Amino acid sequence: MRGKKPPIRALVFDVFGTVVDWRTSIIREGRILGRRKRLRVDWAAFADAWRAGYRPAMARVRSGDLPWMKIDDLHRRILDGLLKQFSIRGLAEAEIDDLNRAWHRLRPWPDARRGLARLKRHHVIATLSNGNVALLVNMAKYARLPWDTVLCAELFHHYKPDPETYLGAAQLLGFAPAEVMMVAAHKDDLRAAMACGLRTAFVRRPLEYGPDVRIDVAADRAFDYNTDDFLDLSRQLEKAGK
Amino acid sequence: MRGKKPPIRALVFDVFGTVVDWRTSIIREGRILGRRKRLRVDWAAFADAWRAGYRPAMARVRSGDLPWMKIDDLHRRILDGLLKQFSIRGLAEAEIDDLNRAWHRLRPWPDARRGLARLKRHHVIATLSNGNVALLVNMAKYARLPWDTVLCAELFHHYKPDPETYLGAAQLLGFAPAEVMMVAAHKDDLRAAMACGLRTAFVRRPLEYGPDVRIDVAADRAFDYNTDDFLDLSRQLEKAGK
Repeated sequence: MRGKKPPIRALVFDVFGTVVDWRTSIIREGRILGRRKRLRVDWAAFADAWRAGYRPAMARVRSGDLPWMKIDDLHRRILDGLLKQFSIRGLAEAEIDDLNRAWHRLRPWPDARRGLARLKRHHVIATLSNGNVALLVNMAKYARLPWDTVLCAELFHHYKPDPETYLGAAQLLGFAPAEVMMVAAHKDDLRAAMACGLRTAFVRRPLEYGPDVRIDVAADRAFDYNTDDFLDLSRQLEKAGK
Repeated sequence: MRGKKPPIRALVFDVFGTVVDWRTSIIREGRILGRRKRLRVDWAAFADAWRAGYRPAMARVRSGDLPWMKIDDLHRRILDGLLKQFSIRGLAEAEIDDLNRAWHRLRPWPDARRGLARLKRHHVIATLSNGNVALLVNMAKYARLPWDTVLCAELFHHYKPDPETYLGAAQLLGFAPAEVMMVAAHKDDLRAAMACGLRTAFVRRPLEYGPDVRIDVAADRAFDYNTDDFLDLSRQLEKAGK
């Protein structure tokens, strides 16, 4: 199955958790809002609950139970439920909308910006995220992420791990799947990309769910690369001459 | 009709002729190939003929006479005809394919890179081109154009001036049409954008078709801005405080 592989021309990146630290970013936005509005909320639990609602919501779109809906709208559906659950009252519509857009203002992991700039020298770098275009473009400006372009579920009306996303990204970039490498902190994302013929790079992000949650960051030889961060990935790719 | 307009949040750019000088770029690529393959070809006439085939080819897609086909494929159809017309023989498939990709390597007008960098400070900047994603991404890397993202006909399966392109770009960027400004050297493109509710900036590119072809670069008050280049556009926008 391995055989001779073509050179890697493009790197496509999962974003939430892989490029940006959604958890501390959402907690921070919550705390700022909480101070301003005098809310007593456990913002860490709030952030975790918001993220926990994300997969089931996408699953409903993937199964056809919900019509196509972008992540901004799924985030908002979940948020409306959380406002009740966490007894958050007194927010105007504009404030709720702004809180929903906290996902447009997520902060990158410390290596991300520099790592991407370095990877960009030799490869096309693009997002391949379940986020929507506006979210990813706004995030890139906010966090100064130097994408060559933004690719995402919204362009295909399919969420990862549907194959349409991985194959669609390769096709839009004009490369064979084996010339494109999926970079992600999530092994299921990588396995789905691999099943479509893409190359894979695992990035360990042990703190994605906070310091108290231990997640599987063990290297897996099924992936082409197992890395500590984007700078490590860059070094490993340069060493392999790819 | 004018009334109070919202601030301009995003600028979307026509590319061929507006950002890049396709004509001298294609002539240059032709001459390099011609020297290597000892071809006697009027490369200026060749470039003009290639470009002249572009609108009729897109019109056939827009009318449904041809199925959806990206510009790389339309360029190749036209090129195959031109090779016969200009009696260009002895090119291997890889050489023909590389010549077709000359459109991925077009050079920017002298103000483009600096102008875009300056416009990017205060606005989302994106392509809105009939070129396909791979072409535009490769061009951006080759010419170091700092797009926030690449939007194009291929994402909508509609070519400009179909309204799906202008409205689709605004929707993906998450802005109302009136918050998005189309920037182009072609008045028909701007008029179609205006009909969809976008703002418009005309950029004079008097040399697009070479020094011997006079084109209409007169200011038109129907457009929000009439400009000499991207730096001028940037200055006018800053002056207007938008």
